[in-house]
Amino acid sequence: MAIYNKQNFPVEKVRKYLEPGPVVLVTSQWENQTDIMTLGWHTILEFSPSLLGCMIASMNVSHELIRNSGECVINIPGVDLIDQVVAIGNSHGDETDKFVVNQLTAQPGDVVKAPLIGECFASFECRLHDGALVDNYNFFIFEVVKAHVDPQQERPATLHYTGEGIFRVMGEQILDQHQKFKPEMLI
Amino acid sequence: MAIYNKQNFPVEKVRKYLEPGPVVLVTSQWENQTDIMTLGWHTILEFSPSLLGCMIASMNVSHELIRNSGECVINIPGVDLIDQVVAIGNSHGDETDKFVVNQLTAQPGDVVKAPLIGECFASFECRLHDGALVDNYNFFIFEVVKAHVDPQQERPATLHYTGEGIFRVMGEQILDQHQKFKPEMLI
Repeated sequence: MAIYNKQNFPVEKVRKYLEPGPVVLVTSQWENQTDIMTLGWHTILEFSPSLLGCMIASMNVSHELIRNSGECVINIPGVDLIDQVVAIGNSHGDETDKFVVNQLTAQPGDVVKAPLIGECFASFECRLHDGALVDNYNFFIFEVVKAHVDPQQERPATLHYTGEGIFRVMGEQILDQHQKFKPEMLI
Repeated sequence: MAIYNKQNFPVEKVRKYLEPGPVVLVTSQWENQTDIMTLGWHTILEFSPSLLGCMIASMNVSHELIRNSGECVINIPGVDLIDQVVAIGNSHGDETDKFVVNQLTAQPGDVVKAPLIGECFASFECRLHDGALVDNYNFFIFEVVKAHVDPQQERPATLHYTGEGIFRVMGEQILDQHQKFKPEMLI
């Protein structure tokens, strides 16, 4: 597995990578505990501030770490990380060091204490923006405060979960429709 | 464009089609007004009740219709509806009858008054479940109360928006990992 050469990316443009709906790996840290979880339930909520919403079930150790720290990193794996995505999704947070067991590289963030995953092509450092729906729906609203993307990964093959252990893989086909868009819609 | 032969589908399983992150067409109705809008900002929130969250900006006519009626239908287009997805995303709700202009077929729902789109392979009738985040984030939490899917469309090629007028198309590749899942995770 490659470690990507990520560079600074505009936080208001993270929808390019998240709106298509890939499975992500969420990293979190609180005191001496670090966790990684697999997540498919997320949505963009706003461009600027760069807001996204994530449903993180309370049975996950990550839920508690994120509640306590108010921070996490959303990392996007390519298809080459399918084994890690499945293994992490089927493990529990306090069993092992998931970085070691899954041969993943923890990299320091610029803003938050939770680590980035070196083997993911994109990592978005997040701070909790609004926790009003956490109690009722486990729904966290985050602000992306720093984004890192490998600029060579324009449209990587990402994993998209359909349930029952089955993932779809994003295809290479692009439909460029920008000429049919009103200028003000081209954001 | 084909009209799909949709049949009843378990509401607690709609994640199969929504979690991969496709662009959807949202239909709504209030009094004598009907609207369709293109939406990419949605996420599953719970299996049962079958909850999903959608960010529907207040500048859309649909926002008002859904607020007033407390209902909508989430329809999933295949790649063959790219022209409709783009045209609807670039039009305004009170200009025209979007069904007529876009050559789409309105079908009656079983539970809600908003119409289904015949040319979409899946249509999920929704009722507003919680509007607590509508004022601050335009975020609607819906319950899927009735789901319709064409059973022949197991894994259709869906559209996934990346911004700037560019769509990606879901590929045909499947990664079946169910043998690596813990039984309790195979939902």
